[in-house]
Amino acid sequence: MTDFASTRSAFHLPEGITYLDGNSLGPMPTHAADRVAAMMRDEWADMLITGWNRAGWYVQPRRVGDRIARLIGAGEGQVVIGDTLSIKVFQALSAALALNPSRRVILSDDGNFPSDLYVAQGLARVMGAELRVVAPEEVAAAITPDLAVLMLTEVDYRTGRRHDMAALTAQAHAAGALTVWDLAHSAGAIDVEPLGADADFAVGCTYKYLNGGPGAPAFIWVHPRHAEAAAPCLQGWMGHAAPFAFDLGYAPAAGIERMRVGTPPVIALAALDAALDVWDGVGMADLRARSVELTEAFIEGVEAACPGVTLHSPRDPAMRGSQVGFRHPQAYAVMQALIARGVIGDFRAPDVLRFGFAPLYNDLGDVERAVAALADILAAGAWDRPDYHRRAAVT
Amino acid sequence: MTDFASTRSAFHLPEGITYLDGNSLGPMPTHAADRVAAMMRDEWADMLITGWNRAGWYVQPRRVGDRIARLIGAGEGQVVIGDTLSIKVFQALSAALALNPSRRVILSDDGNFPSDLYVAQGLARVMGAELRVVAPEEVAAAITPDLAVLMLTEVDYRTGRRHDMAALTAQAHAAGALTVWDLAHSAGAIDVEPLGADADFAVGCTYKYLNGGPGAPAFIWVHPRHAEAAAPCLQGWMGHAAPFAFDLGYAPAAGIERMRVGTPPVIALAALDAALDVWDGVGMADLRARSVELTEAFIEGVEAACPGVTLHSPRDPAMRGSQVGFRHPQAYAVMQALIARGVIGDFRAPDVLRFGFAPLYNDLGDVERAVAALADILAAGAWDRPDYHRRAAVT
Repeated sequence: MTDFASTRSAFHLPEGITYLDGNSLGPMPTHAADRVAAMMRDEWADMLITGWNRAGWYVQPRRVGDRIARLIGAGEGQVVIGDTLSIKVFQALSAALALNPSRRVILSDDGNFPSDLYVAQGLARVMGAELRVVAPEEVAAAITPDLAVLMLTEVDYRTGRRHDMAALTAQAHAAGALTVWDLAHSAGAIDVEPLGADADFAVGCTYKYLNGGPGAPAFIWVHPRHAEAAAPCLQGWMGHAAPFAFDLGYAPAAGIERMRVGTPPVIALAALDAALDVWDGVGMADLRARSVELTEAFIEGVEAACPGVTLHSPRDPAMRGSQVGFRHPQAYAVMQALIARGVIGDFRAPDVLRFGFAPLYNDLGDVERAVAALADILAAGAWDRPDYHRRAAVT
Repeated sequence: MTDFASTRSAFHLPEGITYLDGNSLGPMPTHAADRVAAMMRDEWADMLITGWNRAGWYVQPRRVGDRIARLIGAGEGQVVIGDTLSIKVFQALSAALALNPSRRVILSDDGNFPSDLYVAQGLARVMGAELRVVAPEEVAAAITPDLAVLMLTEVDYRTGRRHDMAALTAQAHAAGALTVWDLAHSAGAIDVEPLGADADFAVGCTYKYLNGGPGAPAFIWVHPRHAEAAAPCLQGWMGHAAPFAFDLGYAPAAGIERMRVGTPPVIALAALDAALDVWDGVGMADLRARSVELTEAFIEGVEAACPGVTLHSPRDPAMRGSQVGFRHPQAYAVMQALIARGVIGDFRAPDVLRFGFAPLYNDLGDVERAVAALADILAAGAWDRPDYHRRAAVT
């Protein structure tokens, strides 16, 4: 059994804060600060350029990728780290389109994170493709025989609704399409297994449930059957078969290494690598059970104590990830009032209060405090203050 | 007058090391370690998600971009930070091709850094373009009326040869083409001015002469005449006009902000921001004069004391950047022998000894020590040891 009291103690959780926004930015594992400081001092400062070999900077994207592979049920050598999630979406989507050259239709849904759609729109423009966007519940019916790629985010960033990855992938394959899955709200949150679901490509970020720090790099997984054939149009020297031969022509590296592009973000990788230490010994079935326990307790508590909000997430835990959304007409102001009381969730336009539950550090005490604060704010109308309606640049 | 003794004292330069590889990875400004530690502790750990507003993470790519703008003679609001250099090349090149839709020929040279060529090859595949690669001295003659984009690295990564940016840009414009300049070996090294040269796009990295740390993010500059028209095919939510409205359709942000893609690398940006402090008060004319002084002294010293090597860089300082290359048939082993004596330069295939001179921290003492070590190694044949011939993974 995973000891979640022990994983919780690995994090710096500020005094007086109930943090339910780890689905936006995970908190800092305490030892990540020491690890980054050591990297700065012992590696960059003292090794200088020799750190590429001596400190293993060069192999870090693959080594750290292997650590993430375990968390998404993938094998060694199937995941590599780098860039941002939007860029990894671009690579995966362009590689998938190239593998299915006789078709040009990309299907996604309007619950996908908008940046994934923006990436698809930009890529479609140059690759002569068409992006179709339907409602999440209409995806299955929209898988038609002209489809090149089905591109979805498994867990909806607003509602927490979870797609059935295995079923939709099987349906897409039967129609002759490939699949690209965004695991932004899955990796480290639920028992996701793109390999088990027979998906083709998967991508994700590491600053949410994996706690890699603000702007931590992304990851990409490629099914082994495509590893030697995938050819994204975004290609750079670190993904070359022989980067230091400085050939004038590109030749892809073997396997997942070809998904590397430029120089890896070494400082950020030190923070991410430290954050992944907390996952050692965490079982994914335990993670999922704990996630369901927390989200169920939160829904039950809010529905009992907080009239005026309505559940925005699927009621069946099998249909959702590790977050819960409630709607309220003044959701923005209500969230400001919660934050003022130390309960940090997230507002998502137009009217969603979003609460993420990260089994690694959230517990039933967090659930209890959040429910009590929300009940109190709604009962007293405490959200109706001018300063709670004033919107900040980043919401 | 810039006080280069003072800027040198801002860096952590390991005892016994003569560092002439800042054109590959700049050394750590001592206070960058404190800055990153403070960012981890006071921002990520304590502010959590509120750091996006409270600590200014969201505006950092533009704010730090403005600091770099001064170093490349550009104006405020013309530069933004993010991603890696290869990705910024991809964005600039795709935007330039889109601005010149009736033409599909990209011209570059074989002295360009290979990753730029790999990026162009990948992009050309999907945009139906053709990449022509000629020798650096043949570029001017190859600017033909069918050219869409001239894409060059100003300073050759092996020889240090400097292209005439203003003249080639004028010639490209006269032929109806746009220009994309890679400033990897220019920014922080020489008095480069893409705006003054009337270039269209410029990109660069920050881990070389700007000392942002291993894998530090890249920058992109767009001439103001293109700022509201440029549309790279690689587009993401941080470059959207209203990122937090979560619209389903992409609408580019005003000006340079549209060149942002995904979430910015906040930890890495703290290191880079600290590194840029050292540039406050540095005059670009002083920088250039100091660079010429150092490289001239090195060439003179080596040619006087080191038979067996031949100058690989242009002899005229006006024709080169801030690095010097010498050729030797056993360059790899010679460089290992130099490194063993604490003189760190770089080997570049097939036979180049490369030495970078960074005015911010290199001085005439470094030149003297490097010349003496090289002379001694060559005179004694000290490079001819089996372990000096054994190649490491990253060279």
